[in-house]
Amino acid sequence: MELYIERGFEQTTVTEIASRAGLTQRTFFRHFADKREVLFAGADQLKELIVRTLDSALDSAAPLDAVAEALQVAGAAMQEGGDRPRLRQVVITANPELQERELIKLASLAAAIAGALRQRGVPDPAASLTAEAGIAVFKIAFERWISLDGQQDLPETIREALEELKAVTAGK
Amino acid sequence: MELYIERGFEQTTVTEIASRAGLTQRTFFRHFADKREVLFAGADQLKELIVRTLDSALDSAAPLDAVAEALQVAGAAMQEGGDRPRLRQVVITANPELQERELIKLASLAAAIAGALRQRGVPDPAASLTAEAGIAVFKIAFERWISLDGQQDLPETIREALEELKAVTAGK
Repeated sequence: MELYIERGFEQTTVTEIASRAGLTQRTFFRHFADKREVLFAGADQLKELIVRTLDSALDSAAPLDAVAEALQVAGAAMQEGGDRPRLRQVVITANPELQERELIKLASLAAAIAGALRQRGVPDPAASLTAEAGIAVFKIAFERWISLDGQQDLPETIREALEELKAVTAGK
Repeated sequence: MELYIERGFEQTTVTEIASRAGLTQRTFFRHFADKREVLFAGADQLKELIVRTLDSALDSAAPLDAVAEALQVAGAAMQEGGDRPRLRQVVITANPELQERELIKLASLAAAIAGALRQRGVPDPAASLTAEAGIAVFKIAFERWISLDGQQDLPETIREALEELKAVTAGK
């Protein structure tokens, strides 16, 4: 990722990335489908963490609150990456292909959350809507957190965005 | 689009599409940036229709209700396309590149809706959250409408999804 920041995503070749990481090209492609994937290396772990947290949520928790709680746990994990999530976002925002990939990852996360909710007995369309609402909260909170240079706690920003969503859907 | 259904999106060349439509390749590229854009030809008009409807909504309408109303107007327009939206969705679902493009179009629609809400004096993050919530409602309603083979009214399906979202955010 350092190379993407130094030279720009488009100008960086797989050979350069692999060499910086001390890998051969072949090893690189064993780990990543393409050079875009490097930036989304943590996405699968984050998805698993969210689904696992959701699976262990109390049955008494309202579905959207359980989703928000799981996203807060993921937010806390992301925050531990220090500057990395913010630098990563600078690279992604500068490149339409990376934005596309990010949208795909968020859609896949929404599908995983909806699946976990169905496991908890939430019927459709409530399961899909709750998952999409959770992703909306996460997206807006993450953008806000980035724009504040990480000066605010990410899990707290997610909680605030959830309250805001509840207010707008209640017509306030 | 007929060609995409007959032969598959990947197997269809720009030359074939242009020839079927009675266009030269050069004219094709004057109208469409690439062959994916053919399937999203109506997206800009739909976006304009939604923003225009939102701009003319009563000031007294709650932001999310105004957004849902504008999406219902767009839904009614889409429904007039008969089988076209459903066939189009079959092509898109079969191809990851087209799904990416669709997600980009939805993100751009969310940005336009958030912009129109700010014009109405809705502050952020409420504007962005309301826009994202509206897109979630539209997406789920559209999927449901497709899965029911268009047997149900699309604007009505959007209204139902909105009610469902209000219920899940209220913790029901």
